[in-house]
Amino acid sequence: MNKQRMEAFSDGVFAIVITLLILDIRIPSVPAEGLAAALVALVPQCLAYVMSFCVVGFYWAVHHRVAHQVKLVDGTFTWLNLAWLLFVSVMPFPTSLLGRYPLQALPIVIYGVNLVVTNLTGLAVQVYMARQPRLLHEPVARGAIARLVPIYVTVNALYGVAIGLAWVLPWGSYALYAGVLTWMIVRNILGRPRMEEGTQPGTTPAAAA
Amino acid sequence: MNKQRMEAFSDGVFAIVITLLILDIRIPSVPAEGLAAALVALVPQCLAYVMSFCVVGFYWAVHHRVAHQVKLVDGTFTWLNLAWLLFVSVMPFPTSLLGRYPLQALPIVIYGVNLVVTNLTGLAVQVYMARQPRLLHEPVARGAIARLVPIYVTVNALYGVAIGLAWVLPWGSYALYAGVLTWMIVRNILGRPRMEEGTQPGTTPAAAA
Amino acid sequence: MNKQRMEAFSDGVFAIVITLLILDIRIPSVPAEGLAAALVALVPQCLAYVMSFCVVGFYWAVHHRVAHQVKLVDGTFTWLNLAWLLFVSVMPFPTSLLGRYPLQALPIVIYGVNLVVTNLTGLAVQVYMARQPRLLHEPVARGAIARLVPIYVTVNALYGVAIGLAWVLPWGSYALYAGVLTWMIVRNILGRPRMEEGTQPGTTPAAAA
Amino acid sequence: MNKQRMEAFSDGVFAIVITLLILDIRIPSVPAEGLAAALVALVPQCLAYVMSFCVVGFYWAVHHRVAHQVKLVDGTFTWLNLAWLLFVSVMPFPTSLLGRYPLQALPIVIYGVNLVVTNLTGLAVQVYMARQPRLLHEPVARGAIARLVPIYVTVNALYGVAIGLAWVLPWGSYALYAGVLTWMIVRNILGRPRMEEGTQPGTTPAAAA
Repeated sequence: MNKQRMEAFSDGVFAIVITLLILDIRIPSVPAEGLAAALVALVPQCLAYVMSFCVVGFYWAVHHRVAHQVKLVDGTFTWLNLAWLLFVSVMPFPTSLLGRYPLQALPIVIYGVNLVVTNLTGLAVQVYMARQPRLLHEPVARGAIARLVPIYVTVNALYGVAIGLAWVLPWGSYALYAGVLTWMIVRNILGRPRMEEGTQPGTTPAAAA
Repeated sequence: MNKQRMEAFSDGVFAIVITLLILDIRIPSVPAEGLAAALVALVPQCLAYVMSFCVVGFYWAVHHRVAHQVKLVDGTFTWLNLAWLLFVSVMPFPTSLLGRYPLQALPIVIYGVNLVVTNLTGLAVQVYMARQPRLLHEPVARGAIARLVPIYVTVNALYGVAIGLAWVLPWGSYALYAGVLTWMIVRNILGRPRMEEGTQPGTTPAAAA
Repeated sequence: MNKQRMEAFSDGVFAIVITLLILDIRIPSVPAEGLAAALVALVPQCLAYVMSFCVVGFYWAVHHRVAHQVKLVDGTFTWLNLAWLLFVSVMPFPTSLLGRYPLQALPIVIYGVNLVVTNLTGLAVQVYMARQPRLLHEPVARGAIARLVPIYVTVNALYGVAIGLAWVLPWGSYALYAGVLTWMIVRNILGRPRMEEGTQPGTTPAAAA
Repeated sequence: MNKQRMEAFSDGVFAIVITLLILDIRIPSVPAEGLAAALVALVPQCLAYVMSFCVVGFYWAVHHRVAHQVKLVDGTFTWLNLAWLLFVSVMPFPTSLLGRYPLQALPIVIYGVNLVVTNLTGLAVQVYMARQPRLLHEPVARGAIARLVPIYVTVNALYGVAIGLAWVLPWGSYALYAGVLTWMIVRNILGRPRMEEGTQPGTTPAAAA
């Protein structure tokens, strides 16, 4: 089983999820003179939209790097990948919840739990892959996954703190979600793919060319 | 007519169906203190969502394997494939119905009938393909389709029992749906592609490599 | 400008339109004892869904054949193609209208007008292509477009009659829409691609191989 | 990191956005005798739909040309591209707003601001690309970006005037939006890709062949 359709299908899911997010911002039916106030009331939904757009974009970038190393796909990889996509596909629901009830604890908790579970399934895909060299273009470097673990532990611990803060300091939760996301995106932009560095030795020369 | 656009189009349909499923889980407009209760009331819809996500993911994996054997696509194949995709595309409707009326007989029946019809059109695609060696990379092994039949008969018989149980024991119907789905996914993960084994002799060495 | 992204984009649009159609079949909020009656009331929408699924599937098959002949894409082709996709993308609207008001004249008229306009833009794409041999793998055979014209005239004349019947005999309109669609699909399945036969001489040997 | 998945993902986003636009045209529940009036009331939404379909189609054509020059994708390119796609993905919202409140100032302003921001992120992608020859098939010609600037300045200045007119002369705003869009599409169709001419010297011979 080659990987092309797995990539095409995954790209489709990411593209659809990221685009469906906007459908949650519904325009209320108000008389014209109340339009400005109604639009101001949508600001939390717009911020939730931007955050989730970046979250899905980030997972897509990670998926891109993981799939880049893969040569063949087996049944386990397919279903681990589907589990990852399941939690990515769920994103419009916690996003919509957060946009509508921005200062309630429950939506903040659900949003954070979804992020943690998505991270864990994404990590599971990478751990499985590292143990199946027959599926890869070249074996994952020794210790690459071990180096991944502290990053995942830190990120998920911060999300755990954000979840805990939901009941006492919602703005702290948002600061943590936005901060971790910004940190991840900056790492991604800086082109220091530490999260996958050990597993992609072949791409470094190409990127340096 | 080559098969690339058939695959791209089918992947698109599968990716969209699997992602649209989440749109059926609508957040009710409730005051903040009623939010927890409103979210608990969504649990049946969430379970229906997960089941249908796995169903669509499974059909995608089967489609992937079928298409892998195909070299050329003719008019009949195109329309049999479209019929298969039609019943896959319908999935959000019975899923939504099941999530909203989880213990009524009718939604359980409609869900099961849709599964049976989707299976039959998928089988029709494979039977047609086996009889058109000119469309394939290599001919389907003698008896491959004959070996498929008992699996399809068993699966659809179990769905038939689940449909019959809808009026007397809805939980029995769910156990059967979930059980058959789990059995199919486990077979898929275990990499013993019995359902298509005879028809894909060329891929066995690659998978064993 | 190569044609690959034009195909990928068009496939995406067709796949999304064909899958979005199901979203128009909304489940009414009724008490459990009224569910059967509510589902029976959805039958016209289900029939409209199946018809439009086949319509979009048919246009996809035609698009597939047209794009198969193309090697390069220029600005005019891109925008003619976008005009074609515009009227395909509109399909969920007249479908939904037809499903909700099945025996009113106006929805039948709008549905028919959309079919006629989609046909005409599709024909425009083919006429333009035939006059731009530099965009094609091999020149369109002399007279190929001339042979297309009577088919398009017949189909659109039948749609015109169906539109006229909307006010006096709605069932006659439906019979014509379904009849023409069945005729087109049967031609497509029989593998006698008369509509494009002259324009695809190169594919006949391949299909016969 | 190769560019194929960036293209596949971007094509998916463009295809979904352009197709989702139709979902905003909702059919009101009216008695049959009020249907004609209800449909006439949808005319502004239909016009907004056509305009946004052309806008998204135009950005897709520009994206196509930009991506055509790219060989490799780095982290910065990925996130600039995601920012561009973010503002393209937002389109269904201002389109829906414009269709429902066509003569209010605020929707016209929001629509225009979204166009300006989308243009600026698209320009940022091209400026970044021109400075990273290692990502390109061949270096961007000297002065190509400098020649882009007056076009972007003119377009965005016209949009700025349209935004200013929203409070005093809404029809003037529409005339400017439609006029600029028509001008851009005509330039695109005429095949004089001035906007990217300097950056795509390699494609001119191919197009002339």
